[in-house]
Parts: sequence; C-alpha cells; structure tokens
Amino acid sequence: MTEQIKGYTYGKAAQSPVSLADLDLLKNTVFFSDLDSKSLQLAGEVLKDQTNEILDLWYGYVGSHEHLIRYFSKSGQPNVAYLGAVRERFKQWILDLCLKPFDQTWLNYQHEIALRHLVIKNQTDQVESEPFVHYRYMIAFIFPITITIKGFLAGKGHDADTVEAMYNAWFKAIVLTTVLWTHPYVKEGKF
Amino acid sequence: MTEQIKGYTYGKAAQSPVSLADLDLLKNTVFFSDLDSKSLQLAGEVLKDQTNEILDLWYGYVGSHEHLIRYFSKSGQPNVAYLGAVRERFKQWILDLCLKPFDQTWLNYQHEIALRHLVIKNQTDQVESEPFVHYRYMIAFIFPITITIKGFLAGKGHDADTVEAMYNAWFKAIVLTTVLWTHPYVKEGKF
Repeated sequence: MTEQIKGYTYGKAAQSPVSLADLDLLKNTVFFSDLDSKSLQLAGEVLKDQTNEILDLWYGYVGSHEHLIRYFSKSGQPNVAYLGAVRERFKQWILDLCLKPFDQTWLNYQHEIALRHLVIKNQTDQVESEPFVHYRYMIAFIFPITITIKGFLAGKGHDADTVEAMYNAWFKAIVLTTVLWTHPYVKEGKF
Repeated sequence: MTEQIKGYTYGKAAQSPVSLADLDLLKNTVFFSDLDSKSLQLAGEVLKDQTNEILDLWYGYVGSHEHLIRYFSKSGQPNVAYLGAVRERFKQWILDLCLKPFDQTWLNYQHEIALRHLVIKNQTDQVESEPFVHYRYMIAFIFPITITIKGFLAGKGHDADTVEAMYNAWFKAIVLTTVLWTHPYVKEGKF
C-alpha cells in the first residue's frame, strides 16, 4: 500500500540535523526502554486496522475547531483534497511510529515532516493554504494525540497493564516526535 | 511562606507576549474544561504536603543523568546552592500550577519562567552555569513531569476515576505550561 500514498517519501528524506546520539539522550530523558519498543510493536498490531477510525476522531476534532481547520483552509474554506491527502500520510504515520525502528531513516523522515509544517507546507500537496502551522499547536497536540489513542489501544481485549504499557510507550513516542517536528521552529543554536 | 522563596516573583512579572485569548484557544486545543480546573484544585490539595517527596524524585532523576545535571553545573561540578534555590521555586510551582487561576498574572509569570530558561538563566540566583537549557529537554520533560505525578496523586486514597481526572488535568496543564515556557525559543512570528 505504502507506495500508493501521495507524498509519502519515507526512506528518501535528507539527513536530519538531529543525530542518533542526540536521539539516544532524548530517549533516556523520557525513560524509553526495550519494553517501550515491544509495547509500540504491539500497539502497531492493535492499531493497524483501526487507523481509519482514529483519523475520523482526529479529523472530527480538527474540523470542529476553527483555529485548527484553518491550517487546511484558504479564505476560510477547507480544502477537501488537501485534508484527504494528509489523512493518508497521517494513517501511515501511526503505523510507522509503532512499527519502524527509531534509526537514521526514521530520524530523517521526522525532519522532513517537521519541514512540511513550517518551511515547505503546502508544497507536498501543491495546495494554497496557511503558509505554516503555528508552533503553539504543534506542542498542544501532544495532549489530544496521546489521550485519544487509549480507547483504540484497549479495543482488542488486552489486559489493563498491557494497555497501560502501550499507552505510556505511545506517549513517550509522541513527545520524542514532537521534539523532532519542532526543530525548524527553534532559534539557531538553541535546540 | 511564599515571600521567603528566593527569586519567586509571582505577581511582579512583566506582560507575557501570549494573550489570554491565545491561552483560551490553547485550552480548547487540549480540551481544558471546568472539570480540569476542579481536578487541579483537588490535585493541589493532594500534592501540597508531598512536594518535598516529588522534588526528591525529580532531582534524583536529573542528578542521575549527566546531560541534565549539566544545566545546574559549571565545569562538570553541580552547584548545590543553585539546585537548592531552584528546588524551592519548583515546589511552589507545583502548587501554583494546581491552585492559581490561569489569568494574566499566571500567564506573565510563566513567561518570566520561560525567560529564566533561555535568556536570563543564572541571573535570578546569580550563579555561573550553562547559559541556557536546550529546547529539546524543555519538551522532553513533559513525559517525566507528567508520568511521575500519578503515584503522588493516588497517595491520598481517592478512587481511580478521581485520580485519573487529576492526572489528565495535570497532563493538560503541563502541556500548556510547556507551550508558554518555550515561547522565547521560537523564531520570530512562528509561535
């Protein structure tokens, strides 16, 4: 399926300015362990046939907030094709976050996604819309993107401890991702 | 007690560049509700006689990671007086986060704290140390500062749903705070 997702260039992104050594320290900072790697793999299995429902929820949330849907809009009019194209990559991102190793290729693609929010927004899908996503919402999204996943993680009959382990691993992965996705927003030398 | 905390200037900080209207949209983005306000108040009651234990845990964590303790150090040597002074303000911050209204005064002080991490670090306590805290750890800290509070919230015999409500309200408050604390790191016009 992967090759059919428009603009999904995993494996082809330029080098991230964040090194694997930097990432290791960040992983230490959020206590990222082998259990988290395993829990994310399990989360990937649990979530892989639920990505449409997850995106329905997330898009319902974005669509019901004027200050968020504007990033998919021009002159107050949401661009349905743009929303649709991002939706497919967003679904794939859920799987990648859970199932892909956090290696150089992963790191590079996180930076590509970062650039797509600030520096080259709209180019991937060749649309006219807000020129960038404001920083504040990149961080604020940590909460909804984390909390809303719990129900889906619990949806396949795993016991409460296993769901909690998957949820905490997801939370850590979202925080790490958000650090990487906001790199281009940060003043020179302060990252 | 408050007036005895060195460098604690709540109520005296300059105007935050973030407006109350901006804050309202951020609160909407993390689903911040009246229940969260009430849950934070309760959390404040639950945590107020546990702040020493919380700081023991957090400082144990910082102290055991070379890449974190460096921000309290000079030439690899941690400054005990500096650690001690920050510790007292950190304890007060736990209470303020739970018990103070998120009004203009609160907003202004969050910006003062933000500046103390990047622009005027070391000045409050007149110490020599790293000139600023790197952005990446400001974000990464969302995880440890959130996850470690749960045990303390559960420490006073409240039922699981009430603990969960306090925990989610805390998580939201930490995300909001982190947005505000990182304002000075963000490139002009991108916040």
